[in-house]
Amino acid sequence: MTNRRLGDATLAFGTPPVLIGHAAVAGKREGEGPLGSSFDHISADSYWGEATWEKAESTMQRTAFALAADKAGIAPRTIDFLFAGDLLNQCIGSTFGSRDSDIPFFGLFGACSTMGEALCLAAMSIAGGFAQHAAAVTSSHFCSAERQFRFPLEYGGQRTPTSQWTVSGAGASILAATGDGPAITHVTPGKIVDAGITDANNMGAAMAPAAYDTIRQHFADTGRTPDDYDLIVTGDLGSLGHAVVVDFFKKDGVTMRTYQDCGLMIFDRQKQQVDAGGSGCGCAATVLNGYLLNAMRAGKWNRILFCPTGALMSVTSSQQGESIPGICHAVAISTIG
Amino acid sequence: MTNRRLGDATLAFGTPPVLIGHAAVAGKREGEGPLGSSFDHISADSYWGEATWEKAESTMQRTAFALAADKAGIAPRTIDFLFAGDLLNQCIGSTFGSRDSDIPFFGLFGACSTMGEALCLAAMSIAGGFAQHAAAVTSSHFCSAERQFRFPLEYGGQRTPTSQWTVSGAGASILAATGDGPAITHVTPGKIVDAGITDANNMGAAMAPAAYDTIRQHFADTGRTPDDYDLIVTGDLGSLGHAVVVDFFKKDGVTMRTYQDCGLMIFDRQKQQVDAGGSGCGCAATVLNGYLLNAMRAGKWNRILFCPTGALMSVTSSQQGESIPGICHAVAISTIG
Repeated sequence: MTNRRLGDATLAFGTPPVLIGHAAVAGKREGEGPLGSSFDHISADSYWGEATWEKAESTMQRTAFALAADKAGIAPRTIDFLFAGDLLNQCIGSTFGSRDSDIPFFGLFGACSTMGEALCLAAMSIAGGFAQHAAAVTSSHFCSAERQFRFPLEYGGQRTPTSQWTVSGAGASILAATGDGPAITHVTPGKIVDAGITDANNMGAAMAPAAYDTIRQHFADTGRTPDDYDLIVTGDLGSLGHAVVVDFFKKDGVTMRTYQDCGLMIFDRQKQQVDAGGSGCGCAATVLNGYLLNAMRAGKWNRILFCPTGALMSVTSSQQGESIPGICHAVAISTIG
Repeated sequence: MTNRRLGDATLAFGTPPVLIGHAAVAGKREGEGPLGSSFDHISADSYWGEATWEKAESTMQRTAFALAADKAGIAPRTIDFLFAGDLLNQCIGSTFGSRDSDIPFFGLFGACSTMGEALCLAAMSIAGGFAQHAAAVTSSHFCSAERQFRFPLEYGGQRTPTSQWTVSGAGASILAATGDGPAITHVTPGKIVDAGITDANNMGAAMAPAAYDTIRQHFADTGRTPDDYDLIVTGDLGSLGHAVVVDFFKKDGVTMRTYQDCGLMIFDRQKQQVDAGGSGCGCAATVLNGYLLNAMRAGKWNRILFCPTGALMSVTSSQQGESIPGICHAVAISTIG
């Protein structure tokens, strides 16, 4: 079967690339949350044994990648392409995480949508016949993100109720042309959508229009409905963004019966005091490569639509009065085709 | 003809994607250089009519993209995927440059290698049967880069002899499954190579080992030699990095007879006082999409190997004592197959 383009923006793979291995590593707070048992490794040390939080983030990526390759049962060196990205300036979490990998490397920036972007490109590289194995890796770290995007941690700044808590964690997926595991049947790469939101403490509202746009596009292109999926899950919209997406679809007469958000799943918002929920590249990445893929392998769900969302802003763009454009990539994962 | 993997890391395209349109826009200083007449548009205003240099960079990308689509004779909306990146924190040059494009968007970070990374992925998306048209766009701006990576311009800091001058400019390529123009026959995506260089004012030395690694890999995978190319051109190694690459190959007994560097071509180093040469994502991007592709269309060269190079560092990584890893992606472009 050959690859097909469906509608405006969806790719249907003739031979769906298989997620033969996946791993998620996370920090203490994430380990104490509802999905704690799904992580392959939890470090109580926010530095992961390194001198800085930025280096810790690289170490998380390296650890997740090594564990995923090990679980896939392949030598890392046999991986043809590595797709990786993160939130840090110039994506140093990924660069230094992959520095010694000796694998052709594609650096990505999709903010918190990066796991989706990496899966799209890794799946395309395999389904296009360019690779036997490809890896998708991404991470975020509360401490490195907080001091880069907001305030020094020592400042002890107040948090707004709409703010989200950046997940400390990394996720890695190993894709293969053939093998055992859930497979990526379709991808719908997203467009940049800017609804004019300017509050950098309300990322959920900034990203929700992009999630709506891409998921709606996916349904239009494939002819599928929410009921075709056992689970539709956005990346890190949090409570506010999740409600916005539900509302947008409701206005179209569409009920998102099985719709959840990784940012709402990874923490117990009340007990863990994370305001609107989790966020960061590591949020969708750890939830997918831990809880979601484990559950698919265990037979809990047959078909999920994984839709990580990103806010494409920087400190500079916000200081210059720019709004916050969002993006969302949808990845259909199935155990049954 | 089907796509093939050659050796460890090279892809040979069954039906080589065609560069049906390309455009380069640049600033005043670049316009006064040896390649000035090859640019589609030169702005004497470093702000490009915008309020800030960062917004100017987005405007340069938008302008280059629009001109390239126009020269290709296609409506921008018919482009299936847009691959873009730049040097600014969180790649805001690309995000805000492409915000209104309404095209599925893949954000990339490959530092100054980004034009090569974007061409690899755009070509793969077409040769894999996923797109009819894809665009690759990137930019840099002397003023936005200088104040982000080094000092405020008002400070008037001294420059070292090994330093390079960030090109203000943007380049855009439009690739298609069929059409008229030079075609991308092979790509060799590069690995991260770290030679332990820590001087952020000597990027040429930091990136040269990556250029050597990828070009050598390309020769090994394809069985080609330097003499198979009318021109081999790195992105922005400058005088020092260029000499290092020549020397590395010399030690292997290989003479790089036709080897040049975009950073040496774009400025008259003596007259324009740019020390070791030009640099930035915009350097390779404007030289390729202006002078090089124009010359190929005019019959000056039949086969070139375009090898942009990137230094994958940030201010934070340098402050934390890290070395500067490099990367280089090689793209073989031919008018004769």
